[in-house]
Amino acid sequence: MSSDRLIYLPLGGAGEIGMNCYVYGYGPAGAERLIVVDLGMTFPDMDTTPGVDLIFPDVSWLEARKDRIEAIFITHAHEDHVGAVGHYWEKLGATIHCRAFTANIARRKMSEHGYSEATVRTLGAWPEDSVTAGPFTVGFVPISHSIPESSSLVIDTPEGRLVHTGDFKIDETPGVGEPFDRALWAQVAEPGVKALICDSTNVFSAHPGRSEASVGPEIEGLMKTAPGMVVATTFASNVSRVRTIAQAGVAAGRSVCLLGRAMRRMIEAAQETGILEDFPSVVSPEEAKDIPRENLLLVVTGSQGERRAASAQLANGKYMGLKMAEGDTFLFSSKTIPGNERGVIRIMNQFSEMGVDVIDDSADRYHVSGHANRPDLKEMHAICQPALVVPMHGEHRHLREMVKLAGEGGYPGVLAVNGTMVDLEVAKPVEFIETGRVYLDGHAHVGQYDGIVRDRIRMALNGHVTVTLVIDEDNEPLGDPWCDLMGLSETGRNNADLAEALESALGSWLQKADAKVLRDDTTLEKDLRTLTRRTAENEIGKKPEVTVVISRLS
Amino acid sequence: MSSDRLIYLPLGGAGEIGMNCYVYGYGPAGAERLIVVDLGMTFPDMDTTPGVDLIFPDVSWLEARKDRIEAIFITHAHEDHVGAVGHYWEKLGATIHCRAFTANIARRKMSEHGYSEATVRTLGAWPEDSVTAGPFTVGFVPISHSIPESSSLVIDTPEGRLVHTGDFKIDETPGVGEPFDRALWAQVAEPGVKALICDSTNVFSAHPGRSEASVGPEIEGLMKTAPGMVVATTFASNVSRVRTIAQAGVAAGRSVCLLGRAMRRMIEAAQETGILEDFPSVVSPEEAKDIPRENLLLVVTGSQGERRAASAQLANGKYMGLKMAEGDTFLFSSKTIPGNERGVIRIMNQFSEMGVDVIDDSADRYHVSGHANRPDLKEMHAICQPALVVPMHGEHRHLREMVKLAGEGGYPGVLAVNGTMVDLEVAKPVEFIETGRVYLDGHAHVGQYDGIVRDRIRMALNGHVTVTLVIDEDNEPLGDPWCDLMGLSETGRNNADLAEALESALGSWLQKADAKVLRDDTTLEKDLRTLTRRTAENEIGKKPEVTVVISRLS
Repeated sequence: MSSDRLIYLPLGGAGEIGMNCYVYGYGPAGAERLIVVDLGMTFPDMDTTPGVDLIFPDVSWLEARKDRIEAIFITHAHEDHVGAVGHYWEKLGATIHCRAFTANIARRKMSEHGYSEATVRTLGAWPEDSVTAGPFTVGFVPISHSIPESSSLVIDTPEGRLVHTGDFKIDETPGVGEPFDRALWAQVAEPGVKALICDSTNVFSAHPGRSEASVGPEIEGLMKTAPGMVVATTFASNVSRVRTIAQAGVAAGRSVCLLGRAMRRMIEAAQETGILEDFPSVVSPEEAKDIPRENLLLVVTGSQGERRAASAQLANGKYMGLKMAEGDTFLFSSKTIPGNERGVIRIMNQFSEMGVDVIDDSADRYHVSGHANRPDLKEMHAICQPALVVPMHGEHRHLREMVKLAGEGGYPGVLAVNGTMVDLEVAKPVEFIETGRVYLDGHAHVGQYDGIVRDRIRMALNGHVTVTLVIDEDNEPLGDPWCDLMGLSETGRNNADLAEALESALGSWLQKADAKVLRDDTTLEKDLRTLTRRTAENEIGKKPEVTVVISRLS
Repeated sequence: MSSDRLIYLPLGGAGEIGMNCYVYGYGPAGAERLIVVDLGMTFPDMDTTPGVDLIFPDVSWLEARKDRIEAIFITHAHEDHVGAVGHYWEKLGATIHCRAFTANIARRKMSEHGYSEATVRTLGAWPEDSVTAGPFTVGFVPISHSIPESSSLVIDTPEGRLVHTGDFKIDETPGVGEPFDRALWAQVAEPGVKALICDSTNVFSAHPGRSEASVGPEIEGLMKTAPGMVVATTFASNVSRVRTIAQAGVAAGRSVCLLGRAMRRMIEAAQETGILEDFPSVVSPEEAKDIPRENLLLVVTGSQGERRAASAQLANGKYMGLKMAEGDTFLFSSKTIPGNERGVIRIMNQFSEMGVDVIDDSADRYHVSGHANRPDLKEMHAICQPALVVPMHGEHRHLREMVKLAGEGGYPGVLAVNGTMVDLEVAKPVEFIETGRVYLDGHAHVGQYDGIVRDRIRMALNGHVTVTLVIDEDNEPLGDPWCDLMGLSETGRNNADLAEALESALGSWLQKADAKVLRDDTTLEKDLRTLTRRTAENEIGKKPEVTVVISRLS
């Protein structure tokens, strides 16, 4: 028996939705040759990451083993799979392999970061094409999802075949992109699958997934009956959906205008790579202004109510010279990602105030998910008949449920969250790696545990007081301390001025303070901070964050 | 024709869900005698109101007309209808009328604020009981909702009868509380209804509402098959549901333990007022510890994932000596209010990590809404046959849709958001009152537009820098300026220390600064702030909030 081992290590995406990054390795323990699957990111929120721009998985473990990385593979062009390539490529340094559409998007990101486009290699579909990366031979197996050219990976190793599904659904009529191909998947399964590493996000959805083709007639019906202008939003990357919406508009006698940078970029990428040859001709926003409303369709970015997207701009008023009005219709051909509800509801109400009818997907007519539901996941297990199921891409509850689902089919499963290194031969965790998140904050990289964002959250919850004090050459306070408030009520109990109340409390304390304390910055700072917090709590019932600055004239 | 007018003025709840407060008036324009219906509150969120404790409607308009307020009526004991009574009673000063259960809750709030319990008067149900308040005669008409003794108001005026539905559903088997009584409602409608002021929250729910009675068998089934301990959460105020859950537990051979202050308080209030006589006997947390898990049911607060509620405490570990374990089941007999998804998902995953099966209402089995759906709203319109429908309690989109729904039934509707005074005789807005929100922040009251919470949000997004500078008697800087960071990356470009980079930029600028600038605090502050922001933007790509403190030795 070989002393080599075959390992799987998720660094992002296992225990969460978003920020996918998985590592496979083969070789002597601690000296495995590695490949990386996906380099994604996730988005911040006000509750936990205010002011943060983007969130990446912490890849320090990989960085420390840069010389062992053979290649990077990106399954598809969603931001939670490809979003970190530009930010991390230099740290990892290996060639990035993708299919054509994904490569087009990845190259745009690489050039934004000043890297050569040659860092990204385009690979054809398996079985015609594949690439050898150290002990691995890897191929992209076309599979349906909600973006063109999504792929599973066939990873052939000295210990047998691994199948990494990537995000997928079983859809035989996906519109743009390859239908789910049962014959091809029989070929994938044919030699036996050692482990199926499987998308888990929709494991709680009990009904079979619906095809992308099912939304076309619904959207067309809506376009035909809507009296005024129709504005529709969906994920820009769902090129098939964008085409369906545009075609429905044309069928209803409407000219189509695309609004939002991402919308135009995705259509452009799909056209450049030859996978979208029948997209209706579009009009520019300038041309759209002269078209009667009932003959106009805008397809816009911002299905999640993002503040700067086209949908939110239209909700605020004019955008690119276009404006919604009474009698128009706004269609969300999308679902709201948990956590984005408030933003979506905000723009819905803004539209309502304009007299615009808002139609969302609450009746399940205008949107289908891009992920495999429970029965489809079961079918995928049955197709691959794997020796082991490893759930990936999902929160803990999804991964756990997937292990149960695999068990129902008679397949052993192993639950591995981010940082859990699994030996796929023995189907057990063998090491736990420290993982986490890295925040892009402005252009600084900030660690999840650095305390920087925590301090911002504290200021948001508690407000901030600056206390300044000048101490003279004799270690005596020069005048009273000075308090500046930010984010705090100006008045405390009995309508007293809060800053004055704080200054007076600190001043009285200083008059009686021990000379030893006055000589020692650390103690003095600590005592002033404590007294400021205690006084504020008494005055307004809040304990603010405090910055104490002591200026010494000595 | 009389010169008196009959007015309706929402101050909260119309254009939002939560924070209900409505005013009716009758008399000469500008001198109407007034009644207030509901004094509710709403809850803050991190996106828009970080650190805020509670949110109330701005009742300045009422306060300025305190001498014209005849009475306050509270339709039911949900916080968004009764939550502000203690905070506002002194400002308004009129007697508060409620039915017994609501009065019990309102009195608890009044005594917490140190007011006499006599400020709250208990009224029986209409038509047996009613109260005259100036030109109005007002009665509480029992109606089903998701809390005991919810009531509509019959408001008889010199111009005819108004019906204010309060929150309601049409439920003939509500469990605890009165079933929807068609005969009684025929009596309400009999003399003709001048205006129906109607709950709108569920106008987009197309299916008929389901009865509270429908969840009992489902929950009982779950209790019987669950292998370990069952922990169930719902809104504590849904006394009927809490009883259903408890009874299902007993039927499955489980002892029942209530966890969470609100849960015990609501059951206590319902028992004190005699509307809950058949609640199963409960065990204390101490007793529960000795009961085998499979014979135990905990009913807990925290259906919205609230951080301090019993559910979140159990998700974090031990609570009151009790701890969930592998094989236990956690049931959400509730829906997640939009905006609370992240908190709920967080505890779901914490339970998953413990090996606990989490069951939510995604299959529509374990929860029913307390609000009337579209077909039920239609029925209510048909029952009352009002001359006018005024939608209340709902976001703008709900109010707007309700006007449409009324129109479908042939009833004219008028859309009035907070601050819109409607003359109910002419069914038109006649005045627009400035309204808004008041934040309880610690124990200070802070206005929505005071900029205080805005500053906190800015600190959360941008971080904060304190710049201190001492200027000597000759108006010369004494040493270099000093920069303290909070919530900002410590290093900027090329790994330089950010504080040092800022100090160096400010120091260089000061050396060249004009003597006139150095003498003028306002200009100096402004210039230092601008330069700090510009330098930080260059170093880390963020423009922080800045507090500049200049200490002058002169």
